[in-house]
Amino acid sequence: MAAAQLSNPTLHARQGHMADRTQAADVTFEDVKRAAKVIEGAVVRTPCDLSFTLSHDLGADICLKFENLQFTSAYKERGALVRLSALSDAERKRGVIAMSAGNHAQGVSYHAGRLGIPATIVMPEGTPAVKAENTKRWGAHVILEGKTLEDSARFARGYCEQHGLVFVHPFDDPLVIAGQGTVAIEMLEAMADLDVLVVPVGGGGLVAGMAVAAKAIKPGIEVIGVEAALYPSIYNKIKGTNLPTRGDTLAEGIAVANPGVLTTEIISRLVDDIVLVSETDLERATFALLMIEKTVVEGAGAAGLAAVMADRQRWKGRKLGLPLTGGNIDPRLLASVLTRELAREGRLSRLTIDIPDRPGELSRVSAVLGQAGANIVEVYHQRVFTDLPARGTELNLVIETRDRSHLEGVLAQLEAKGYRVIVKTGQAAG
Amino acid sequence: MAAAQLSNPTLHARQGHMADRTQAADVTFEDVKRAAKVIEGAVVRTPCDLSFTLSHDLGADICLKFENLQFTSAYKERGALVRLSALSDAERKRGVIAMSAGNHAQGVSYHAGRLGIPATIVMPEGTPAVKAENTKRWGAHVILEGKTLEDSARFARGYCEQHGLVFVHPFDDPLVIAGQGTVAIEMLEAMADLDVLVVPVGGGGLVAGMAVAAKAIKPGIEVIGVEAALYPSIYNKIKGTNLPTRGDTLAEGIAVANPGVLTTEIISRLVDDIVLVSETDLERATFALLMIEKTVVEGAGAAGLAAVMADRQRWKGRKLGLPLTGGNIDPRLLASVLTRELAREGRLSRLTIDIPDRPGELSRVSAVLGQAGANIVEVYHQRVFTDLPARGTELNLVIETRDRSHLEGVLAQLEAKGYRVIVKTGQAAG
Repeated sequence: MAAAQLSNPTLHARQGHMADRTQAADVTFEDVKRAAKVIEGAVVRTPCDLSFTLSHDLGADICLKFENLQFTSAYKERGALVRLSALSDAERKRGVIAMSAGNHAQGVSYHAGRLGIPATIVMPEGTPAVKAENTKRWGAHVILEGKTLEDSARFARGYCEQHGLVFVHPFDDPLVIAGQGTVAIEMLEAMADLDVLVVPVGGGGLVAGMAVAAKAIKPGIEVIGVEAALYPSIYNKIKGTNLPTRGDTLAEGIAVANPGVLTTEIISRLVDDIVLVSETDLERATFALLMIEKTVVEGAGAAGLAAVMADRQRWKGRKLGLPLTGGNIDPRLLASVLTRELAREGRLSRLTIDIPDRPGELSRVSAVLGQAGANIVEVYHQRVFTDLPARGTELNLVIETRDRSHLEGVLAQLEAKGYRVIVKTGQAAG
Repeated sequence: MAAAQLSNPTLHARQGHMADRTQAADVTFEDVKRAAKVIEGAVVRTPCDLSFTLSHDLGADICLKFENLQFTSAYKERGALVRLSALSDAERKRGVIAMSAGNHAQGVSYHAGRLGIPATIVMPEGTPAVKAENTKRWGAHVILEGKTLEDSARFARGYCEQHGLVFVHPFDDPLVIAGQGTVAIEMLEAMADLDVLVVPVGGGGLVAGMAVAAKAIKPGIEVIGVEAALYPSIYNKIKGTNLPTRGDTLAEGIAVANPGVLTTEIISRLVDDIVLVSETDLERATFALLMIEKTVVEGAGAAGLAAVMADRQRWKGRKLGLPLTGGNIDPRLLASVLTRELAREGRLSRLTIDIPDRPGELSRVSAVLGQAGANIVEVYHQRVFTDLPARGTELNLVIETRDRSHLEGVLAQLEAKGYRVIVKTGQAAG
């Protein structure tokens, strides 16, 4: 069904969507090669390295393309620059507009600034000041307007028409798609023997462009898209399902409810499968990249690795290419990823201990914990809202232990002293 | 005074210290060049890149050498491999021993494993299991022994003698120093026009080796050592001061109370200055590397950048080479670095609000915060231990705001409603 409906992408793109300046019905390998020439020297040719440790741990060769080390920390610059480079002299003078609070905003702003093209970026009200600042830094005019992304988009389209600007779409534009596809050329030049590309999918621009290039260079290669399970929008289109798309995901960069028309058409034709990853998968992959690769990725950037870690059997023995698409993660989210993983590892735990309500009891519990080598991080002593008999009370603690076996030893010692303990290791201090 | 006392480093090294297999009185540039040949192909030639953003922000060219991207995530492999490569056949058979819970342990273990040399690593009891596991991974025999580092060192020396092993010292050994010096050769090959090297200092092996190489290659170059202010041990020797060396520092990798004899001699001769950095400096630099460079460094690895950020005037307009010495940081420490910086930026704040002790008051405060766009992260409602009159009570909150100006707006709205608020932004949720 989806395929039939989408058989004329140009028409669709020219209708409802913002990519009304779409110049071609399709994206070819020639377009991607041309794009590669356009960005040469102006976009970082990021490293593409085999990770020995991840490969060893996962039983497959894991090759990482560090697009988080782009100048604005995301691959989005590629498509933005290709689109900007195609402007006519008159269009360059009038300038461009984009709607984004994320990586696309910075990519457009940075390259427009570099090329002397006036750029207007519309962001929703309440966007953190640091994001607006990072975008203004390169000279863009930032307008905070709209309570939601949809409101901002509506405003941006109106502003665009009114001022005769060119709208730079984040994904549903053949030039943007061709630009993103250059990632695949670079990966296959660095590692010709890749068997599979595992690519995060939001609007679909990256995976569509990469599939065009990779299948042309190496027809036998598999291209797999990865969506956050909370935003299975392309998955729904490809698989004919109707899963809900909503919620707070760590992978906000790929939390797209309405993917592109052109991207969906290319994906349904060239991409071998779309897989979904849970929030826990995304957190663990982000954590692994931090702790093993010493590299900071945003949740969306870790989606490829999340898919591999979540289903090791599927990828066993193959050589996988994973673009780490971006590194712009909020420090508070990053801190939360770290502490939640510690909780899962049994290093941070929340304990609820029933104790008699009498003097000295807290100190007795603390003494047991101290002798066992556990570090008390938080204490909350609750005497009112408990379901214990009137003379009992509840002590809530967050403790730090060296690892799960240390935690188990600590619990055994508490229980040996007669305390009843309920443990929560799944979530703590986050 | 220090220089005179240290005029015969070989003698000293042969006496009290563990580097009793020291083979030469000094380290020459020839030694470092030889070391570079030894490690070629077996140790990663890590990237050395100019950071545009840090350079722009700090007003000096900041060139980073990413030793945190070594295989075991630290430069320590260099010296360890050079020392291992110098073993006689008989020594190789009997094996080596080292005492370390940190990067040296992994460096020795990894290269000994690679070369088929039996390695014993002694770590203090209570070392987190993950550190022991990371070291066992390469085949080393790990012994957990000793309540403190000193106890472990004593045990290791006894075990070494008893089993006829070679002790691989983490810094006070000419071969180890020569190995670490290869970092300077690589940096100056990548960027010949560096004016200054700013190098973290613990035992002194890295800065000593780098100074030997750098001053030979480019006599006019400045070499500056950086110590944590809590562990100014080489600073004391060079400056003749007697500052205390103790405390918990983020830079545990350079928390060395007794630096080497040979390293101190070389440093006093070749290093231009030693500067000290505070814990706040270390935290901010670690944070900047995470958020700007997208790279994970341990506290010690950020010491060079910490020194530059703490005294911008000193380095203005010069081209600085900063080795990021290691990336092995505990995830809980890393989370704490992130949240503490958010607190400093006014994004996480602890508020104490005096409220009348009557029904609905908590809900009224929450409503003000919600309307102002602040996110409540933690609540603690205290009615007993307050210095307010009996009818008043204290509400403690941790709130999240977009930035400092948003925080100020939130506070103004609380005050407009008549609440008296005390704010703590310096430390929260850490």
